[in-house]
Amino acid sequence: MIIQEQGAAEKILKLLTKSQSHPISGQEIGHLLGMSRTSVWKRIRDLRSLGYEIEASTRSGYRLIRSPDLLIPFEIKLNLRTRWMGRRIHYFQKIDSTNSKAYELALKGAKEGEIVIAESQKRGRGRLGRKWFSPPFLNLYLSVILRPKIPPHQASLLTLMAAVATAEAIEKYSGLQPLIKWPNDILMRNRKVAGLLNEIRSEGDRIDFIILGIGVNLNMKTTQFPQEIRSLATSLKIEKGESISRKEFLQTLLKTLEEWYEIFMKEGGERILKVWREKSRIKGRAVRVTSFGQSFTGRAVDVDSEGALILRIRKGERRRIVAGDIEYFE
Amino acid sequence: MIIQEQGAAEKILKLLTKSQSHPISGQEIGHLLGMSRTSVWKRIRDLRSLGYEIEASTRSGYRLIRSPDLLIPFEIKLNLRTRWMGRRIHYFQKIDSTNSKAYELALKGAKEGEIVIAESQKRGRGRLGRKWFSPPFLNLYLSVILRPKIPPHQASLLTLMAAVATAEAIEKYSGLQPLIKWPNDILMRNRKVAGLLNEIRSEGDRIDFIILGIGVNLNMKTTQFPQEIRSLATSLKIEKGESISRKEFLQTLLKTLEEWYEIFMKEGGERILKVWREKSRIKGRAVRVTSFGQSFTGRAVDVDSEGALILRIRKGERRRIVAGDIEYFE
Repeated sequence: MIIQEQGAAEKILKLLTKSQSHPISGQEIGHLLGMSRTSVWKRIRDLRSLGYEIEASTRSGYRLIRSPDLLIPFEIKLNLRTRWMGRRIHYFQKIDSTNSKAYELALKGAKEGEIVIAESQKRGRGRLGRKWFSPPFLNLYLSVILRPKIPPHQASLLTLMAAVATAEAIEKYSGLQPLIKWPNDILMRNRKVAGLLNEIRSEGDRIDFIILGIGVNLNMKTTQFPQEIRSLATSLKIEKGESISRKEFLQTLLKTLEEWYEIFMKEGGERILKVWREKSRIKGRAVRVTSFGQSFTGRAVDVDSEGALILRIRKGERRRIVAGDIEYFE
Repeated sequence: MIIQEQGAAEKILKLLTKSQSHPISGQEIGHLLGMSRTSVWKRIRDLRSLGYEIEASTRSGYRLIRSPDLLIPFEIKLNLRTRWMGRRIHYFQKIDSTNSKAYELALKGAKEGEIVIAESQKRGRGRLGRKWFSPPFLNLYLSVILRPKIPPHQASLLTLMAAVATAEAIEKYSGLQPLIKWPNDILMRNRKVAGLLNEIRSEGDRIDFIILGIGVNLNMKTTQFPQEIRSLATSLKIEKGESISRKEFLQTLLKTLEEWYEIFMKEGGERILKVWREKSRIKGRAVRVTSFGQSFTGRAVDVDSEGALILRIRKGERRRIVAGDIEYFE
């Protein structure tokens, strides 16, 4: 079953959430929502199949006992403290890719701040055409639509921004300290806990829109990762040793993203770069970078204002690398 | 009527073109193309309404006397000397915008070198959200799909490339010398004869595709321009004093584009930049640049390897401008 935003099941859920301690009869629900008692009952059955514990008594009616950790839009909005980010949520149980969907919506005119979330992705994508492992109900797959009035060459600053915001959301939520890896992975104990994929449409000198794709491994156990990435990936649950509320994490992340985006639009990229540098601890590290088939080793000097990596290859010779994969030697 | 690529009318046209001097009967055409004589006759009528002069005699059949200057794909391909550029042509009598159509086709997987042309555009677009005046049958409205394996920050080099190729095609065809105006207009006698609008889709560190939109004013008369742009725009016909074959100009342009694109992919941007600098004669000129609401005056020093304009504002102070509008003072 797919719960659409403001679908019948979601409306019932809203009613049950509001009247939490008091049971509410099928007749009353039907009356309030203009549905028959039978269709109310069918939607209740759907909700139960999703993991909602709903008590039913023939005398008094339905009562919500416990919610599963789903990313149902109205539940997210309940405690969302943002002003505009994520105020419109496109929610899917299963989707090809949240980024592709967000791109499609943006082409059709979706507004800044609209987001796409999914419980699982059939074709989750990472950088450089790689896959992003996206099993259901465990993690966060989020795409945010932004329409900044900036020239295309500044777009990479927004990737850095998304990395900073994601790392900060992880810190706020867990108290742990993740590391940003150039250009856009988030590591814990040297394993990937989150990844970012931005997609941009630009027209002449303007950005039409940017899709910030953010995948965060939240409740995966080690054994749930495919064998080949088990030693390379981790989740917040593994790191923290306890289950993560996906809802609360998403709320934290959206709030952090909104704050950083507003800083960027007001002040430009300097503060983002400063925090990015702190959280990446990249300066001075010995690295190998593979970029468009070429490999460079050297010492990372800095990341410049367009997000490019400055590498000192040998004394007096520096190289600016705009895209690629990095490995640390130390 | 819209002639689709390889539609019935186009097939008939092909037959008539092949047997130019010998008439060919409706029956024979019908037999060769699997059509009834009546539908052959209807398509002949359509072709005539487009301006094709087709002689018909009841005894001997149909004979093509003269073709109008339409951009019918098979006629373009007849003398097209490219290897891959424009080998697949999406042709429209009327369209919203060739760039929008090309973007849509590229999203669906259209290949490098496929082009979109239209006789007219309902919503022809220029830079910065401006309109591009696009009346039927007079000019060239072309969009080229490219899929270069380069990082997004190099995309602006392809805009410079398109400017160089368009200017060169104008030179080859007319013997006249246009001037490139930063970033992507082509001027003759200080009036705009052509404009470029690139649209890019990028994903992470990769370009997915670039749409090069090229509009060239070919056969417009001064009085055919709207009053408000009459002193700012010109056409190749006005400049050269004679009618332009749109077909031949397009063939020249596609060939030039293919050559420059291959140079770019093989050698990188240096030669493009060199020729761009020559054809723009921008070095040392006093200019005012308006960029994202800010205005700068100074002397143009150069255009750098990413297509940005380097401006000397005062002694010792330079500014790098990536997007904007330029005015010359001298």
